[in-house]
Amino acid sequence: MSQYDVVVIGAGPGGYIAAIRAAQLGFKTACIDAGKNKAGDAPALGGTCLNVGCIPSKALLQSSENFHAASHDFAEHGIEVDVKNFDAAKMIARKDEIVTKLTGGIGFLFKKNKVDSLHGKGSLKGQNGDAWQIEVDNNGDKQTVEAKQVIIATGSVPRPLPLISIDNINVLDNEGALNLEAVPQKLGVIGSGVIGLEMGSVWKRLGADVTILEAAPAFMAAADQQIAREALKIFTKEQGLKIELGVEISAVSQDKNGVTVNYKLKDAEHSATFDKLIVAIGRIPNTQGLNAAEVGLEIDERGYIKVDADCRTNLPNVWAIGDVVRGPMLAHKASDEGVAVAERIAGQKPHLDFNTIPWVIYTHPEIAWVGKTEEQLKADGVNYKKGQSGFGANGRALGLGMAQGTVKVLADAETDRILGVHMIGPMASELIAEAVMAMEFKASSEDIGRIVHAHPTLSEVLHEAALAADKRALHG
Amino acid sequence: MSQYDVVVIGAGPGGYIAAIRAAQLGFKTACIDAGKNKAGDAPALGGTCLNVGCIPSKALLQSSENFHAASHDFAEHGIEVDVKNFDAAKMIARKDEIVTKLTGGIGFLFKKNKVDSLHGKGSLKGQNGDAWQIEVDNNGDKQTVEAKQVIIATGSVPRPLPLISIDNINVLDNEGALNLEAVPQKLGVIGSGVIGLEMGSVWKRLGADVTILEAAPAFMAAADQQIAREALKIFTKEQGLKIELGVEISAVSQDKNGVTVNYKLKDAEHSATFDKLIVAIGRIPNTQGLNAAEVGLEIDERGYIKVDADCRTNLPNVWAIGDVVRGPMLAHKASDEGVAVAERIAGQKPHLDFNTIPWVIYTHPEIAWVGKTEEQLKADGVNYKKGQSGFGANGRALGLGMAQGTVKVLADAETDRILGVHMIGPMASELIAEAVMAMEFKASSEDIGRIVHAHPTLSEVLHEAALAADKRALHG
Repeated sequence: MSQYDVVVIGAGPGGYIAAIRAAQLGFKTACIDAGKNKAGDAPALGGTCLNVGCIPSKALLQSSENFHAASHDFAEHGIEVDVKNFDAAKMIARKDEIVTKLTGGIGFLFKKNKVDSLHGKGSLKGQNGDAWQIEVDNNGDKQTVEAKQVIIATGSVPRPLPLISIDNINVLDNEGALNLEAVPQKLGVIGSGVIGLEMGSVWKRLGADVTILEAAPAFMAAADQQIAREALKIFTKEQGLKIELGVEISAVSQDKNGVTVNYKLKDAEHSATFDKLIVAIGRIPNTQGLNAAEVGLEIDERGYIKVDADCRTNLPNVWAIGDVVRGPMLAHKASDEGVAVAERIAGQKPHLDFNTIPWVIYTHPEIAWVGKTEEQLKADGVNYKKGQSGFGANGRALGLGMAQGTVKVLADAETDRILGVHMIGPMASELIAEAVMAMEFKASSEDIGRIVHAHPTLSEVLHEAALAADKRALHG
Repeated sequence: MSQYDVVVIGAGPGGYIAAIRAAQLGFKTACIDAGKNKAGDAPALGGTCLNVGCIPSKALLQSSENFHAASHDFAEHGIEVDVKNFDAAKMIARKDEIVTKLTGGIGFLFKKNKVDSLHGKGSLKGQNGDAWQIEVDNNGDKQTVEAKQVIIATGSVPRPLPLISIDNINVLDNEGALNLEAVPQKLGVIGSGVIGLEMGSVWKRLGADVTILEAAPAFMAAADQQIAREALKIFTKEQGLKIELGVEISAVSQDKNGVTVNYKLKDAEHSATFDKLIVAIGRIPNTQGLNAAEVGLEIDERGYIKVDADCRTNLPNVWAIGDVVRGPMLAHKASDEGVAVAERIAGQKPHLDFNTIPWVIYTHPEIAWVGKTEEQLKADGVNYKKGQSGFGANGRALGLGMAQGTVKVLADAETDRILGVHMIGPMASELIAEAVMAMEFKASSEDIGRIVHAHPTLSEVLHEAALAADKRALHG
């Protein structure tokens, strides 16, 4: 039986990073993963994020933005084009190529760092002395390995809708939404979370008539509501997404005409029939098959593996990280927990601050934030001030033809320390990095205001918002 | 005679910002500027940067990238387009609209901040007691104003080539290069500085056959040479720009066949004839018409107004900022000197560190850096370490279809403090902001490595380069 210092279960962005870091720190490490490529004929590392999440969605995002730009934006540049044909299958193939390249890259990194990659489903079998026995089940072909330390990084799976099951033909989860080989005429999306908004936007840009149905009464409840309102206006009034909030789904059915959703909205009954329906009502921790109950691994009432602030479970030398534990379901949170746990096993004392973990939604324009929203600050009774600035008069944004959006800086009214930065606008996903850096160094809004920002860049809008918070906006 | 607390001469990014900040600090302020719009029929604020520099070039940049993408990159996304027509005049009109919007915006900001905008050429006439008398000459229509404090922000003008004069028909400076209404078949560029590279790239993407002739033996001598080498390879081998280094121009002449440049290269005589020739051999400080000699304003041997570290000239209460004084000729350097001088006049003690001023070149991919290059560190005898990472395995870069380039982090070998960050890659202009923030807070490479970067973003490449400098690259 193979014996390891560290065995990681799951090779998503939490698990593969944990395994590499553990190996770098001198531990004999294996990483168990059951993931397969799209064809289902070979193992594929990288988990949901690389295979059917962040990465493929960003590939489609770009393709759909190109398509939309060619059809709508090029004329003003003097570029007259005829879009002769759009081959969705080719777009999907490009996406698949990027996924294959990156998932293959993890295999390469495992070899380079001497991490053993074990294909199959990993489950905890019990202890042999201090060591944990872990079974790797590759479709019935079983082996058992031993590990002094176990890191569970099994991620999450889509929350099922009780009313209908996913067939990934007409009723789609994130995986199916990434693999449509033709643009549906009418696309329904249940859920206006990150996946619903990103996938809805992709297919809308490609020409689908998209309706998003959301149970919550507020749009983007986790985001700062000023940004959420601006986003909702852009998505609906300007981009033509239909977004219904406060919807109660009563039935979903399929027949030859498509997928019909019956729902209640403001006490009225509605019915809508779509060619395809994406179900994206959130994700739940994936603990299935871990053998948690048998070995006594504690799971909380919401299905997450219970961990302390350092990702320790109730079992000795068993850790859990990423989507399968509390905290934001974000790939980079999982990766950084993975690094931190490997370093804790090595006796180091790393620290991870959830408050400075950035959030990004890859709509167009992009949405990103870090720190507290105005709503949170109000609820916490914090005395704050705010500064904001728009992209409308930013030279780079105008040059790019993407001059929509706003950056808002929230700072402590007394100390000027930055408490949150919220933005909707071009490349917000990248602009947020500067704000994270600032918050990690406990910067004041005056600090950002006094730091030279290159001209002409989008980052000048953050600069200007910080100046505004400090009551000395130059372009306000 | 109107009397002011502060009069600023020049309304470019140095001057207009200085004027606004002075007014915000309670000073009665005027800003004198002689700039006119492209048609020449109305004043236009904003100086070279807004009218014929940074801003219009970024507009053309995007148009030319769209054109190139449609012709070369869209097919792999499944988007089949016919580029039916390219109307360069329309592209130029879009650029002009952006310029008009932004230059008009400064007029609006002047009104809002109660800055008097005086149109004409400003010159120092002498002192009346402590006050300076400044003449404003609007084509012979003269007025004199008085100011307790004067800020000179007259910027720079293109360095002339002694061999031929600019007609902006066939022999172009930055202004003419921005206004070609048809794509030249053969375009020559003398000078491979920022303007030569950006304009050469724009017209190359639009289909011109572009040759850049550079006198210096090294490419991009101010940049880190590893980045410069990578850039040169991409521009020449992949994009087809012809770049000749170490060229000695012997003659330039015009006839009905075009503009002919005779030059010596490696001791051989060459001759090349172009439809259009851009001359971009640098810029020189603009002190013409200031009446400097008569009032005793000291100018150094290179033509810059002499100033101390705080932008004080040799004359009492006369300051100078931006391109007309020492230091990098960058719009954001000028703006921040403008803010600093206004604040010094108000008795504040601001500080500007040239070492943390970012540099950006808007080629494709973009180039950006902050702090010291490897060459500078070697020359200074600094014991440094480096970490680098490429965009080739970055998910966002692959999604964008822009996975070329490298980020390099240089840090002190003992203290790990970051000494320089150099990059060539997608959106480097924006990514550099995080590095500037880090350097302002005297961050170590470990600091950047320990800060969570959103996934999937381009900023992860900076994160990885920082980890590599700290010898713990995760994807190396």
